Amino acid sequence: MPGIGPRTAQRLALHLLRQPEERVRSFADAMLAAKSQVGQCQKCFHLSADPICEICRNEGRDSEFLCVVADSRDLLALERTKEFKGLYHVLGGLISPMDGVGPEILNVSSLVKRVDADDVDEVILALTPSVEGDTTSLYLARLLKPFTKVSRIAYGLPVGGELEYADEVTLTRALEGRQTLG
Amino acid sequence: MPGIGPRTAQRLALHLLRQPEERVRSFADAMLAAKSQVGQCQKCFHLSADPICEICRNEGRDSEFLCVVADSRDLLALERTKEFKGLYHVLGGLISPMDGVGPEILNVSSLVKRVDADDVDEVILALTPSVEGDTTSLYLARLLKPFTKVSRIAYGLPVGGELEYADEVTLTRALEGRQTLG
Repeated sequence: MPGIGPRTAQRLALHLLRQPEERVRSFADAMLAAKSQVGQCQKCFHLSADPICEICRNEGRDSEFLCVVADSRDLLALERTKEFKGLYHVLGGLISPMDGVGPEILNVSSLVKRVDADDVDEVILALTPSVEGDTTSLYLARLLKPFTKVSRIAYGLPVGGELEYADEVTLTRALEGRQTLG
Repeated sequence: MPGIGPRTAQRLALHLLRQPEERVRSFADAMLAAKSQVGQCQKCFHLSADPICEICRNEGRDSEFLCVVADSRDLLALERTKEFKGLYHVLGGLISPMDGVGPEILNVSSLVKRVDADDVDEVILALTPSVEGDTTSLYLARLLKPFTKVSRIAYGLPVGGELEYADEVTLTRALEGRQTLG
């Protein structure tokens, strides 16, 4: 399991062995229940216990904005900002020819269909600034431009970050992505 | 000295005591020489041993672009990107009413004079995304807009940074500062 080394694993295992059998059983049941009940939203592919997830079902959200993310963790990070009121589309990964991940494995065709069918004013690509993220952004921008406006989140200096400690690539991106004021 | 705690200080002091007197003297002389010789460029206020610094003297640089930074460390960080070919203006700090730092203490009037006199096409504000940085950017943008175009570097996701681990404020800025593609 990620972040669990041999020593932590041993500590957790010994802790489990000290618990009454009942607690261990209910923990095991909870894991199995989560595994069997949590699937994907049929619309946005976010983790969901229902066929359509809570976000997609929420009528209060702004369906004109569609934010594209690599996975559910990124979606949850954006939700924590409480800033974005639109809908999401979870790709399930990023295009990576080196790892044999092409757009056909990702939720791309469903994205195009969604943008075409629904009345989406703007697709916001919120992908990580890496080779894979950039490749995927470029690919999706070209694919979606006939249907709608496509934008991507800003790459630059993180808030609270000192210029002095920023790496060269981030500073270069911050310079390139500069915005006119006023 | 910054970053030097009592233990490191003791290690350095003991190391100095182990050196021959000649080396200690040449180190002391070098420090004094640096202190007496390094002043400020009269044009951009970057650290410089000459009245006009190397960057300002360099005819190959693009004098239409003027990048405003808080201090020389930020200037050096931007120089490391090898991306920016324009000139700089070092403010000597950021506006901070809480600490009693107003624009009159900073190199602001010299900046306005410079922008007015020289043929500057664009002033790029490269200030840190903090309360002080934002205040200073806003102040300078208002001040300089009658003379030239004013922009600021992008604030957003740092390169190599994962969406998942970005703080809410950075993600909010990245969403707000999104750029249309194509």
